[in-house]
Amino acid sequence: MENMEEVQSKHTWMHVVQYYETDAMQIVHHSNYIRWMEEVRLDYLSKVGLAYDSMEAHGIIIPVLSASCEYKTATRYGETVKIMAEMERFDGLRFYVTYRITSEDGSVLHATGRTSHCFLNRDMKPVNVKKAAPEIYDFFRHFKK
Amino acid sequence: MENMEEVQSKHTWMHVVQYYETDAMQIVHHSNYIRWMEEVRLDYLSKVGLAYDSMEAHGIIIPVLSASCEYKTATRYGETVKIMAEMERFDGLRFYVTYRITSEDGSVLHATGRTSHCFLNRDMKPVNVKKAAPEIYDFFRHFKK
Amino acid sequence: MENMEEVQSKHTWMHVVQYYETDAMQIVHHSNYIRWMEEVRLDYLSKVGLAYDSMEAHGIIIPVLSASCEYKTATRYGETVKIMAEMERFDGLRFYVTYRITSEDGSVLHATGRTSHCFLNRDMKPVNVKKAAPEIYDFFRHFKK
Amino acid sequence: MENMEEVQSKHTWMHVVQYYETDAMQIVHHSNYIRWMEEVRLDYLSKVGLAYDSMEAHGIIIPVLSASCEYKTATRYGETVKIMAEMERFDGLRFYVTYRITSEDGSVLHATGRTSHCFLNRDMKPVNVKKAAPEIYDFFRHFKK
Repeated sequence: MENMEEVQSKHTWMHVVQYYETDAMQIVHHSNYIRWMEEVRLDYLSKVGLAYDSMEAHGIIIPVLSASCEYKTATRYGETVKIMAEMERFDGLRFYVTYRITSEDGSVLHATGRTSHCFLNRDMKPVNVKKAAPEIYDFFRHFKK
Repeated sequence: MENMEEVQSKHTWMHVVQYYETDAMQIVHHSNYIRWMEEVRLDYLSKVGLAYDSMEAHGIIIPVLSASCEYKTATRYGETVKIMAEMERFDGLRFYVTYRITSEDGSVLHATGRTSHCFLNRDMKPVNVKKAAPEIYDFFRHFKK
Repeated sequence: MENMEEVQSKHTWMHVVQYYETDAMQIVHHSNYIRWMEEVRLDYLSKVGLAYDSMEAHGIIIPVLSASCEYKTATRYGETVKIMAEMERFDGLRFYVTYRITSEDGSVLHATGRTSHCFLNRDMKPVNVKKAAPEIYDFFRHFKK
Repeated sequence: MENMEEVQSKHTWMHVVQYYETDAMQIVHHSNYIRWMEEVRLDYLSKVGLAYDSMEAHGIIIPVLSASCEYKTATRYGETVKIMAEMERFDGLRFYVTYRITSEDGSVLHATGRTSHCFLNRDMKPVNVKKAAPEIYDFFRHFKK
């Protein structure tokens, strides 16, 4: 019997807002939130043993199939934001990650988001990760719903 | 009686993919698609008389409330992409724009997307654009559904 | 008599290389080094009491007059870099900052750089900082050569 | 006898300033000028038959060894800039390109810059381009000084 508690489904990453991330509205340009989601997602995958370079050693690439963000409150230079990622589910082919971006102390919700991903080989062809990389599948199967 | 045909609801923008937009997967980083949507959107608004600086002269800011993108086919350095924006609708407070990003000749669909926006004053408070800026409302009312 | 040792002339900042900073050569795109120099410079100025927003409260803007970078060894996704800034000198109007970007442990030199800056008011006109903002001058006078 | 006039030593590229290139000072962030230099440089190399992908077919990579920029007048959203590149010289190992960034009509000088480059193979080792890729050398020899 599986013990879900052993599998890390959430991960938090702190990001210090940089001046070069602001735009002429004097707030962070909205495209950067998509980048922040990547920061926490890749750090999360790395923490659970699925670092980008180890994936690559398996010949597996994880592209972004979709990304969305709902902007709630602007962020500004000088602030630090907390970005929380949660593995939502894995359907055997694709996995889905949701995000919450808040102020450092969690009191202000800046944005929520979601991305979906699949597994490709080096020729950009879809890969059955269960067969091609059981070590990777071993993590994702915990999120199969 | 309104003549919708007089109001431009679609706009096309060509973007030459830049090397600095690529990432280590040797394709364009997905965050740039969000930026390309801004390119066509702001050029469209400018063409219909709602340039960023004229908006600002009215004391009105148009932030992004949400953005989403579905990635279909990767784009690469050396390609030119065609980005088409279409004003989907205006609900009195928010407006919605949809996007199609294709190859230069339109034969390959790279991505589809959608953004939503509202009107704020300089203090970042929501504005009733009908009252505050009838000239701006005059354009958006054509998309009221 | 001045005690130079009380004035912090150097500052170090760690940067975790992000995937979105890479390019199709699978190394960090060179333009990002210019951004990393800004990261350490603004953090340094903040630490010595000259945070961007406190400068702004004085009505003072500090633009970049020049920036240069010598690239020595490529950096890659997965690495952390150490960026060291040093206030080189202040000539009464402009100040000069030099940078060293190394691997986390300092053993590999990735790049060296230099930026110069002046003080402007909100109308983008040069400001005599000694008169306009003695509190700011009080820091920079230590580097007058 | 060589006819230098047959070799294109200058190239011009127009860039429409994008909103996402601005920062909280409401001017274009200085790091983007380094990117604009890349835009004109790669388009120039492409025009003289040295497109990135044809270089790659030769197994040759052209990294940036150094980049510098002197900022003269700020650029803003809504403007179009003209970026002129000039091949300065080739010393057998490295080549040097200079840049002038002006307003669309050339009346305002926004910035000047310079980059230097060498030739590497896929293992990031320096390459003698004269031996390894005579077709590429054939272009650069015109700038040997």
